[in-house]
Amino acid sequence: MIFKGYAALEAKGELKPFEYEPGSLLLNEVQIKVETCGICHSDLSMLNNDWEMSQFPLIPGHEVIGIVELVGEQVKHLKTGQRVGVGWFSNSCMTCEWCVGGDHNLCGAAEGIIVGRHGGFADRVRVDATWAIPIPDGVNSEFAGPLMCGGITVFNPILQLGIKPTSRVGVIGIGGLGHLALKFLDAYGCEVTAFSSSENKEDEAKSFGADHFVNSLDSDSLEKIAGSLDFILSTVNVPLNWTAYINALRPKGRLHIVGAVVEPIPVPVFPLLLGQKSISASPLGSPNSMMVMLEFAARHHIEPMVETYPMDKVNDAMEKLRSREPRYRLVLKNEN
Amino acid sequence: MIFKGYAALEAKGELKPFEYEPGSLLLNEVQIKVETCGICHSDLSMLNNDWEMSQFPLIPGHEVIGIVELVGEQVKHLKTGQRVGVGWFSNSCMTCEWCVGGDHNLCGAAEGIIVGRHGGFADRVRVDATWAIPIPDGVNSEFAGPLMCGGITVFNPILQLGIKPTSRVGVIGIGGLGHLALKFLDAYGCEVTAFSSSENKEDEAKSFGADHFVNSLDSDSLEKIAGSLDFILSTVNVPLNWTAYINALRPKGRLHIVGAVVEPIPVPVFPLLLGQKSISASPLGSPNSMMVMLEFAARHHIEPMVETYPMDKVNDAMEKLRSREPRYRLVLKNEN
Repeated sequence: MIFKGYAALEAKGELKPFEYEPGSLLLNEVQIKVETCGICHSDLSMLNNDWEMSQFPLIPGHEVIGIVELVGEQVKHLKTGQRVGVGWFSNSCMTCEWCVGGDHNLCGAAEGIIVGRHGGFADRVRVDATWAIPIPDGVNSEFAGPLMCGGITVFNPILQLGIKPTSRVGVIGIGGLGHLALKFLDAYGCEVTAFSSSENKEDEAKSFGADHFVNSLDSDSLEKIAGSLDFILSTVNVPLNWTAYINALRPKGRLHIVGAVVEPIPVPVFPLLLGQKSISASPLGSPNSMMVMLEFAARHHIEPMVETYPMDKVNDAMEKLRSREPRYRLVLKNEN
Repeated sequence: MIFKGYAALEAKGELKPFEYEPGSLLLNEVQIKVETCGICHSDLSMLNNDWEMSQFPLIPGHEVIGIVELVGEQVKHLKTGQRVGVGWFSNSCMTCEWCVGGDHNLCGAAEGIIVGRHGGFADRVRVDATWAIPIPDGVNSEFAGPLMCGGITVFNPILQLGIKPTSRVGVIGIGGLGHLALKFLDAYGCEVTAFSSSENKEDEAKSFGADHFVNSLDSDSLEKIAGSLDFILSTVNVPLNWTAYINALRPKGRLHIVGAVVEPIPVPVFPLLLGQKSISASPLGSPNSMMVMLEFAARHHIEPMVETYPMDKVNDAMEKLRSREPRYRLVLKNEN
């Protein structure tokens, strides 16, 4: 068996047709015939070796949707022909306290699908069966892809941190992650405020479920909402006026970060202390959280807004990603 | 009726005998004959007008224990002769969502007993009856004083944030607050690590309930405990090697601040994000939390280590506080 995909041969290299021999299917694995694969900014970071953990040749892709076509001998819960999705993780140890406790995404040995191995810009991938999550019938494969990484990244904190339908929430950054966060939080029943530096996104943000829109470059507008939000989710990866967002929180409020900001956040202690506030961050989600998300997304018809490219136009899609202009998530699709 | 206390007439002034006429007792108030009053670092900050909200003359003192001697007409739950304690707050609005929800300490209109009014370095004080907390019989008045501010400041997060007997916890700073935190957490059943820059406090920290002692100036020791703690409570008000403490947390761990650090804390996002960690802070506690704390302290014989001064030696006690050498909490006592 030969797997065919698109790999960069070196950091920042163009993606070129690339084949590899995956070896024998392991007992715990499933082999997936890829239907679609979403493109995430992390694919670009890995291609650029920004995090200094890339190995080349590298086939990116970690928002995979496809059909199970081979099942390892120990895999009992998945069958050939079944549609599944895979996100950032392709395996974890299954025995540490985090895996055993259902928090597989916090496993110290969790394996990234494109870290030292090949991802979903390809016709096939293999992953551990626990990390191949069944996709409900109501969610089509083009929309399901971006849920597996972008979606779970914003949904996981909503689930884990006890956000309630009565919560007043904010989302910073209306992009691939942020537009999904607006949809999830709206479906949760929350009062939702969108923060964006692009004033022209107001109408779209409201169409995604935002009740209010605040231009994040306008410090007067930020000041006006002081003390009004229970939860603010930041999806951006650039430094912000953090103090203004902390001040925008109500007592017991939380500013939660899912954007990989490189610069340390200077946290003023007094507003945190007087209002019993917190700042936190989280990565992706566990298999269970992904199942809960997919069920919720199917039931509430939560779909990313996507631009779809044929798999062989992957370099065009990556160029679109680099332009920072996708609205809002890019998806590659294999011909059938 | 004349109340007699010790007031500073100006910022940083010496405390001098001072009398005032409190007016009529309000319907919601109780009048308390002061037995003891603990001294907190915040008394010094208020005397120095560090927070620019002091009004002079100022009688400090917000760790008051005494006997109810007058009861306002609307007060039904307290009786003359009953022993009560008062901390930083002397009143709150009782009608906002926070007061009504039991989080009176987060009330935006909560009144500080020494903010624009007089505190417990005196023979008598008056406060709203909800903020006069009955003291259980098992706790003597010299020990009860420091529980009302120092004690509740460290106990409140333990209670609010779901710390469990199975938690592995750390306490930064072994002083007035820190030594009480060690005792509370030990009684909670936790595995407790004490962090101090004073190596000579190791034996004492262990006598307070610490299972482990880490010299916080030794970066190797801090590195060695990376990923080992669920909860770290910082009681100090100086900048620390915050990143080392964040790294000392296990996944889902929390660094919680109760020391009023002036300098913003530079929070690195990646360790927070990968480990689903959080940073938070909190002020004091609600009347209900104070009741829970006192019941717990009585049942577990949790007592601060105190140095007691007669009320008329208040300036000697303040000098001891300024020296930063008290072990660990200073208490003023009225003659009977």
